[in-house]
This record gives sequence, C-alpha cells and structure tokens, in this order.
Amino acid sequence: MDDLQRNGLQIIQDESEFCFGMDAVLLSGFVSVKPGERVIDLGTGNGILPLLLSAKTEASQITGLELDETTCDMAVRSVKLNGLEEKINIDCGDIRSASEKYGASSFDVVVSNPPYMTAGHGLTNPDPRKAIARHEVKCTLEELIRETTRLLVSNGRCYFVHRPFRLVDLFALMRKYKLEPKTMRLVHPFSDAEPNMVLVEGIRNSKPRLTVLPPLIVYKEKGIYTEEIREIYSF
Amino acid sequence: MDDLQRNGLQIIQDESEFCFGMDAVLLSGFVSVKPGERVIDLGTGNGILPLLLSAKTEASQITGLELDETTCDMAVRSVKLNGLEEKINIDCGDIRSASEKYGASSFDVVVSNPPYMTAGHGLTNPDPRKAIARHEVKCTLEELIRETTRLLVSNGRCYFVHRPFRLVDLFALMRKYKLEPKTMRLVHPFSDAEPNMVLVEGIRNSKPRLTVLPPLIVYKEKGIYTEEIREIYSF
Repeated sequence: MDDLQRNGLQIIQDESEFCFGMDAVLLSGFVSVKPGERVIDLGTGNGILPLLLSAKTEASQITGLELDETTCDMAVRSVKLNGLEEKINIDCGDIRSASEKYGASSFDVVVSNPPYMTAGHGLTNPDPRKAIARHEVKCTLEELIRETTRLLVSNGRCYFVHRPFRLVDLFALMRKYKLEPKTMRLVHPFSDAEPNMVLVEGIRNSKPRLTVLPPLIVYKEKGIYTEEIREIYSF
Repeated sequence: MDDLQRNGLQIIQDESEFCFGMDAVLLSGFVSVKPGERVIDLGTGNGILPLLLSAKTEASQITGLELDETTCDMAVRSVKLNGLEEKINIDCGDIRSASEKYGASSFDVVVSNPPYMTAGHGLTNPDPRKAIARHEVKCTLEELIRETTRLLVSNGRCYFVHRPFRLVDLFALMRKYKLEPKTMRLVHPFSDAEPNMVLVEGIRNSKPRLTVLPPLIVYKEKGIYTEEIREIYSF
C-alpha cells in the first residue's frame, strides 16, 4: 500500500507489477474536468488516474476500465479503501468494445495512459500482464482513439500521455477520428534534455489549431524537482 | 543592402517588402546537407536560404524557386553580388508545378519556409505580394508537401520551419505524402514561453519514429541571445 501524498489517498499496488508513475501524475495535472462531468479512464491499471482525478476535480462520476482481472481487483480495493465507491466505479473489460459497453456519446472526458510500444517492437516483457501494459498487445493506439471518439459527446475532450516518438502516430490518428489535437505539452527531465513524455488534449469535432504550451521541466538539478512539478504533486 | 554577418555575405532586400528573419536563419542551422547533394528552396524569397546554405554546406548545387518576379530579381542580384552564380541558381516559377519543371526525384534535400496562414484566415495583407508571402494564397501547405515528395529521391530529406499552431496539419500532410517526420525542434523565445516556431525534418519513405530535440531557447534574458542562438548566427 502506497501513500499518494494527496487528500490522504492511498493506493494498493504490487511493485512486482506495473506501478503508477510520474506519467499518471502529470496527466492528472494536465486534465481539465468541469463540475458534473462524466469521465472515463481507458486502461486504468490500479486505478491511479480515477483516484487522483477524484481528489482534483468535481466530476460527477469517474469510470476506470481495465482488462486484467487481478489489476482490476486491486483498483476496486483501492477505491473502497479510500471510501470513494460513490464517485468511482471500476469495470473489468476490453477497451476495444468500450463504446458498446457504455453506449455512444456517454462521456464528457476520456483520459488514457496507453501502452507506448507497438506490438512486436522493442523487447516484449515475457510476463504477459506487463507486456499488455507496455505494448499494444491487446489494444492498438488506433483502437483506443476510435473508442475514445465514440465514447465522447461532440466537443467532448480527451487527454493522453504518450511518448514523443509516437507523436506523429498520435496526431494523425486523432485527426483521422475527428479528435482534433488542441493543446500539447512536452515533458523534459531537464531543461536542456529531449522530452520523454508528451501530454495532448483533443476535442471531438473541433477546428484545427494547436496550442503548444511552454515545456514542463521535471528537475531543476539532479534529484531536485522544479516548483511546477512540486505543485502538481501536492495540489 | 544588409550584411549577413557570415562569410562576408550580403543580401539585397527591400525593407518595405517581406524581409528574411530569424526563421530563415534557424532553419539554415537545422538543415543538414552532405557534400555533393542537390538542394532546392521552395519559395526562396530574396534568396536568404540558398545564400546561408552556400556558406554552411558543401551542396553541389542550390536552387531557389520564387514566384514573384521582383523578389526573384532581387535574389538573382544578391547571388551575383556574392559571386555565387556557380553554386546557386534562382528560378522564377510556381511551386505547384516544381516537379514538372525539374523532374521527379531530382533533389536530395528540399527546404522551405512556407507561408504560415491558411488563405482566408487572419488578416490578409492588402499588398498582394506580402499576402502571398504570409498566406497560402498561391500555394497551400498540401501543394508544397506534394511537390516536396515528388522532387525528392527516395530517402531524400526535407526541412521546414512553420508555426506550432499548424503542427498537426504539417505532420498529417507529411505522413499522407510519405514524407515521414523524423526530427522536430520547437523554438521558444524564452525558456518558460510557448514556442513560436517549429523546425521539422522529414525523410521520404522512412519508417515512423519521431525524435523530439531539446527546446531551442532564443533569449536567456530580454535582448540577450542564448549561446546556442549566437552560435547559429555566427557559424
């Protein structure tokens, strides 16, 4: 059990499994949810994003969808542990049929921290559960984006965290499925380093025009977070 | 007549016209040309990019294509003034028929600093010559990219400078015409500011995988260039 250092939240995670990391925290800091909106996290893992968003936003309902049953069970227990059963529901199921499960246009906001690697690229983890979390074994980026569009109301918003080397794939697929990229922020470990994450906001059926935000720098020097990162971690 | 502060180069430009600016200089710093390669600049204006690239690279031949006859004439005179007629040739003509003019696969490298605004968006300059340089009046981004692909050999490279708000258009069109974006660099006036330019390298028929470089910061404080900008200006 780990302390989320926020609103007294705690999360159950098995450190031999795929644990939540900075990408989930930075995505939760990038997401904007208006009071009363319905939110879904596609591929929620141990439920870190719903937990963080429940603390940060006034969403009416936050759903977390996760394929793996063991991970799903961990997420359910974390929600109970924090007494958030009213606000968060965790479902075990496949992203690829999410719009059938929930119905079209059933959410105002979709968030996702998808696997970064395409199937068959890079070293695939021999543990199939870790491989699914890291590689597009069970759901490609295109399937995720297709379902995101179907789940969103018109002008609904989506927020993704991904790796910069996939940025062209992400933009091209978002545009293909009428999920126009509107805001982008690159995350750099140091101010003079290449970015290792990218945060993107898309709006369904919006006109083209991208705003690129100033870079988000993680460390001002080795081991010392920048003010902005400290704020995101302690909102 | 302006001094380019480099190799003793000089350029003829009418300051009531559209003058070269930092975007051309930063693009010339981003472009990589191997000895003996054939380079074309689509929409060369007063010829600033061919002049800078003649100083920076060992290209065998640099062509500048410009639609406007008066601007073309200025570029021709600048080339003569610098005694570079052997290395640079300036042609007056339309980008949209460049591949007919020069033939398919006739260049190793294409560079361009295209108009940033789509036709009909934003305030169009009442002076038609300035409007053509700033808005996609005579050539859309799609036409530019289509011609770039046709002009390049397979694995040939292209380099564009554009505005970040058009990044999705640029990536989507480059991919559509099999000009895969391989390297991107955002240019920020200050380290904590939004970027106001983006530099992109594409390779014809290359596999998807984008490298995003560290941000290029222009000023370390108001009026004082960073070391990197000073280096680009004084290579």
